[in-house]
Amino acid sequence: MTKGVKRSSSVPQQPLGVKEPAARAAVVGAAGFSGALAANLLWHHPAVALELVTARSDAGRRLDEVYPRYRVPLRLEEFDATSLTGLDVAVVGYPHGSAASVVAELRGRGLRVVDLSADFRLADVDVYGRWYRQHGAPALLGQAVYGLTELDRERIATADLVANPGCYPTAALLALAPLAKAGLIDDVMIDAKSGISGAGRSPSRLTHFVSADENVRAYSVTGHRHAPEIDQELARLGVEGKCSFVPHLVPLDQGLLASCYVTASHSISSGELEELYADFYAGEPFIEIVDSPPGVREVRDTNFCRIHPTLDEEGGRIYVFASIDNLWKGAAGQAVQNLNLMLGRDETEGLR
Amino acid sequence: MTKGVKRSSSVPQQPLGVKEPAARAAVVGAAGFSGALAANLLWHHPAVALELVTARSDAGRRLDEVYPRYRVPLRLEEFDATSLTGLDVAVVGYPHGSAASVVAELRGRGLRVVDLSADFRLADVDVYGRWYRQHGAPALLGQAVYGLTELDRERIATADLVANPGCYPTAALLALAPLAKAGLIDDVMIDAKSGISGAGRSPSRLTHFVSADENVRAYSVTGHRHAPEIDQELARLGVEGKCSFVPHLVPLDQGLLASCYVTASHSISSGELEELYADFYAGEPFIEIVDSPPGVREVRDTNFCRIHPTLDEEGGRIYVFASIDNLWKGAAGQAVQNLNLMLGRDETEGLR
Amino acid sequence: MTKGVKRSSSVPQQPLGVKEPAARAAVVGAAGFSGALAANLLWHHPAVALELVTARSDAGRRLDEVYPRYRVPLRLEEFDATSLTGLDVAVVGYPHGSAASVVAELRGRGLRVVDLSADFRLADVDVYGRWYRQHGAPALLGQAVYGLTELDRERIATADLVANPGCYPTAALLALAPLAKAGLIDDVMIDAKSGISGAGRSPSRLTHFVSADENVRAYSVTGHRHAPEIDQELARLGVEGKCSFVPHLVPLDQGLLASCYVTASHSISSGELEELYADFYAGEPFIEIVDSPPGVREVRDTNFCRIHPTLDEEGGRIYVFASIDNLWKGAAGQAVQNLNLMLGRDETEGLR
Amino acid sequence: MTKGVKRSSSVPQQPLGVKEPAARAAVVGAAGFSGALAANLLWHHPAVALELVTARSDAGRRLDEVYPRYRVPLRLEEFDATSLTGLDVAVVGYPHGSAASVVAELRGRGLRVVDLSADFRLADVDVYGRWYRQHGAPALLGQAVYGLTELDRERIATADLVANPGCYPTAALLALAPLAKAGLIDDVMIDAKSGISGAGRSPSRLTHFVSADENVRAYSVTGHRHAPEIDQELARLGVEGKCSFVPHLVPLDQGLLASCYVTASHSISSGELEELYADFYAGEPFIEIVDSPPGVREVRDTNFCRIHPTLDEEGGRIYVFASIDNLWKGAAGQAVQNLNLMLGRDETEGLR
Repeated sequence: MTKGVKRSSSVPQQPLGVKEPAARAAVVGAAGFSGALAANLLWHHPAVALELVTARSDAGRRLDEVYPRYRVPLRLEEFDATSLTGLDVAVVGYPHGSAASVVAELRGRGLRVVDLSADFRLADVDVYGRWYRQHGAPALLGQAVYGLTELDRERIATADLVANPGCYPTAALLALAPLAKAGLIDDVMIDAKSGISGAGRSPSRLTHFVSADENVRAYSVTGHRHAPEIDQELARLGVEGKCSFVPHLVPLDQGLLASCYVTASHSISSGELEELYADFYAGEPFIEIVDSPPGVREVRDTNFCRIHPTLDEEGGRIYVFASIDNLWKGAAGQAVQNLNLMLGRDETEGLR
Repeated sequence: MTKGVKRSSSVPQQPLGVKEPAARAAVVGAAGFSGALAANLLWHHPAVALELVTARSDAGRRLDEVYPRYRVPLRLEEFDATSLTGLDVAVVGYPHGSAASVVAELRGRGLRVVDLSADFRLADVDVYGRWYRQHGAPALLGQAVYGLTELDRERIATADLVANPGCYPTAALLALAPLAKAGLIDDVMIDAKSGISGAGRSPSRLTHFVSADENVRAYSVTGHRHAPEIDQELARLGVEGKCSFVPHLVPLDQGLLASCYVTASHSISSGELEELYADFYAGEPFIEIVDSPPGVREVRDTNFCRIHPTLDEEGGRIYVFASIDNLWKGAAGQAVQNLNLMLGRDETEGLR
Repeated sequence: MTKGVKRSSSVPQQPLGVKEPAARAAVVGAAGFSGALAANLLWHHPAVALELVTARSDAGRRLDEVYPRYRVPLRLEEFDATSLTGLDVAVVGYPHGSAASVVAELRGRGLRVVDLSADFRLADVDVYGRWYRQHGAPALLGQAVYGLTELDRERIATADLVANPGCYPTAALLALAPLAKAGLIDDVMIDAKSGISGAGRSPSRLTHFVSADENVRAYSVTGHRHAPEIDQELARLGVEGKCSFVPHLVPLDQGLLASCYVTASHSISSGELEELYADFYAGEPFIEIVDSPPGVREVRDTNFCRIHPTLDEEGGRIYVFASIDNLWKGAAGQAVQNLNLMLGRDETEGLR
Repeated sequence: MTKGVKRSSSVPQQPLGVKEPAARAAVVGAAGFSGALAANLLWHHPAVALELVTARSDAGRRLDEVYPRYRVPLRLEEFDATSLTGLDVAVVGYPHGSAASVVAELRGRGLRVVDLSADFRLADVDVYGRWYRQHGAPALLGQAVYGLTELDRERIATADLVANPGCYPTAALLALAPLAKAGLIDDVMIDAKSGISGAGRSPSRLTHFVSADENVRAYSVTGHRHAPEIDQELARLGVEGKCSFVPHLVPLDQGLLASCYVTASHSISSGELEELYADFYAGEPFIEIVDSPPGVREVRDTNFCRIHPTLDEEGGRIYVFASIDNLWKGAAGQAVQNLNLMLGRDETEGLR
């Protein structure tokens, strides 16, 4: 290690499959659920050298102490911009609001960034301000590309700053994109169910086992922050107006199901619906179109999104169910998928 | 006990709070989840003498062996119509399709009946036939009163045969009735989440711990049998057309949440909405209108239904969330509530 | 309410079953799991008027807001000794270390107290100091009676200060007492499993759903604070030496199983073992001797302790399994059971 | 595919990392939990070609229909010995008692076999008969090598028939082996906790979600079939006498914790204990010695065994806690580990 450059005491055993890594990476903010998984995925990535993991709350401890599930023997460092020399890319796992400024610093030092927070997802700084707070780095908003991999591969591949989508928008948009592009959505109601890891690592009454166990309930029913994000992206896909979006907490750790109820703008047959989805997602490595409603258990600890579209002939609606692992395809997994694209690698590397 | 009449070897300790019971009762089909809970509630009921419990699969075993949680020391008997002499009322816990004929037998011997199955819920024998099978006792359909207590007290009180509502219809109809009666429902989408006990006691792949744990998924998405039941009752409340109803399984044992998304036929203010529900359910002992979305945990092992109506000002919808315990208010609890009414007792007796 | 005496705004609907309450009660520290359940049990108690509930962290909020499961419409007050006038008894739900001084204040004002904390469980102030901290009211130690109801009824009935046992000691001692009294214990290993509510209401990494879910592990393996408590009480029952005690956390909310492995000092037949337990606990309202290992689910939300003793003929050991609900028989339920004794009431009042 | 040889319609996409597979494999009995995971691991194995999966109950269905979590697109075939031509190795996932005869058939056709059942674990045919039933292929017992990888690498590598250890014995023996070999075990009590997948795929009251959820209980407390297996292997390690072994079910899907309480034959210091384990397992790829009691969550979906030995200075015992995933290291994972050895491959191939 270059003298004077303080990095994570990177143990030599990182099981790299290549001689020369495609990139040297940092995970900045690796103590939260998503950041820690990103670090775990990159540590075991065959072509990326993970050289630095930082954290605010747990600096000084080894990541595998904080997350005994993940076998990453790196020490979490305090963030220090001077230690970034020689790094190419970073995944940022800071909370909404705190991420913007650290992203700015990383970009200032030339690192390409995938940001797990919401800070660069909303293109309109006023909308961001209304749902979050005053933006910490508005000048960078123009650089940011919304990173729903399957919908924006080309832009992501060349981006320097990718705003990784929220977990709910990921599932909802993957469920709805084929209908949206086909002009079929007149109105949509999204009822989503998330495991408790979606509420983050901070211990609270909400995440206390005794509150969550044997429970299911809706929350933030008339104003979840992912609603404007879904609206923005549906608009890009040609759907006007506000969607209705209601999230629920269910007693499991990882998993997210989006049940999408669409009033169709014109009628479609069952066969056409099936074909629409099969065509739209043909060849996608992480999208699985299935013929019955998918359980979240089927995609647990994977980067897959399983989608089942069906026609409610009685009620005249189209139902689409999409299940993901909120920490994988809904956060860290998709971040690595995007990083692979940015590095010109096979999109699935390190994710199988 | 009268000689020759074979009853459950009813241990004398039934903790009756009255000298002369208001009624002598049987639970016919007490080995399933709902029947067993009904037996448990009646055993501890202060004014009803539980004198007979029958079962097909577990006859010969004591109920507290089969359900160690319930402290009911009665032996499960084979059903034998001759042993019914002297009994006044029965709760029937047979599966759909099998209940009709045993109800007919009980009615033939003069017992007043609350039937937990779907056999007498649908007034139209053809609709029943389409969703279930050929009806086993169509002549009795005319006698049956649909037993959603809060909506039909007078008819239930004098009925000889009460068709106890399904668990999903109970929650959905309690959530929607005030809007329906006020003519506010133009369209409604019901996304419901049920604990695994809703799938019944039969062990199956569906109810295997390893299938249900860490999972959430939709099922019977375009044709659940509770849909025509909800439609029928909504029609009685003045709502035309088919509702859209999608049930989900969530990994918990008892609990059911109905998330109802209503497109209003005309606009209503937040205050008016609140008042509508407060007025509609004023004085109800088991309905709790609350100011945030209710968790199912809050009503676990109780007969309460907790309801939260709210306005989605952005999307122009009314959301109503209703949580119940599917085995209590969704089945056996409501059965006892109805039985209390039929016996002219305080509706809450044995349910607190 | 007497002017100048600030009490909980006690809503008049407390469903008292008697005209004149047997006692006027407070729960001091009602925001924790055990204190809140004690308040819930006393609110629904037929003969005790619950007039005051206090809390430090949640003062000002209503108890049914903080615990929506419990239907107790009292407002949590700051503790203020001047508001205790006219009260007869108190249950104290403060954390270990903080309870002693508030108990002293309550005793100073003449209230009889059941203390849920460990502060008065260890008779030896030095042992207490070693496991907890310097004792806050050593002068009161002589007044305190250890409140394992089944083993000390007479002393509890007349006590002014009852030290309610810990959850692990309750299960372990009830499991072992018959063997101990019979001089059968040469050595004992206790492997206990507790639900997460046993770790208290404070949100922490330990109690975070994502840490506890799909997990089981031992903790405090060579020094849990309940070990000296078990030792002290086993010594009173005639067993010398230190027991070995290892607690585990299991992913459920309420429930505790103590698996006790005893090396017998002399041999005993299977029939004698059965008889020993049957005799020892004959007539006990809350002890159930069963013929197979009891699950904690069977005693959930009850004050029962279910015990199964059995002989391991191969290995030469006696096994005893005891299951309780850690919040009921392991804390608040037993507190009310003790309170009933102190008030000369039927021990089961308010607990069925 | 050779004409006339009916194999699973092996879809060409098996992601083999080598040109010529090290072996052509079958999983015979791939519909149970362990067999299905073995098939999943072999399908994704970089050097083994999985060419046949058979099942009795689900023949005709694709494995990824039966196990949507596992992405194995092979059709389950009826077992037919004539279709084995050209195959080199098989993992057998039949139930105890049924496995012996199919293993005999496989051996008769020259396949090397890893058997997941108990049929070849007990060397003494009479002991087998006492705990299971009359043995179906006693002549093969002499060929069988007990497959606890870490303890018997050389014999496993050259074996034609490996009896894969039970899940409880795997964890218990890995926990105890260092002490046993060092002659430190005077007496041992094993209290084990298993997730519900350990009870197998057959739906039953035991495995019903509603029975297992919020529950923990002991079972088979004085006669679990894994006890003689542990005894046999401890004897090979020099420990005489019967161990005491009590298994419990805990509400989680995959995971097993063995808490082992050892009375030491002579005293040992904390440092010596630590060193003993560090030395014994030095260089082991799947054994992790940790400094606090391991949770099963930490080894979920991995082949790791995490072990924590510690001294109970007060009680004079040695405690050893070992956690594994019962389906991985406790069954299919260890089977693949053994298969790798048998094929002369790196032991960790396909298991990371």
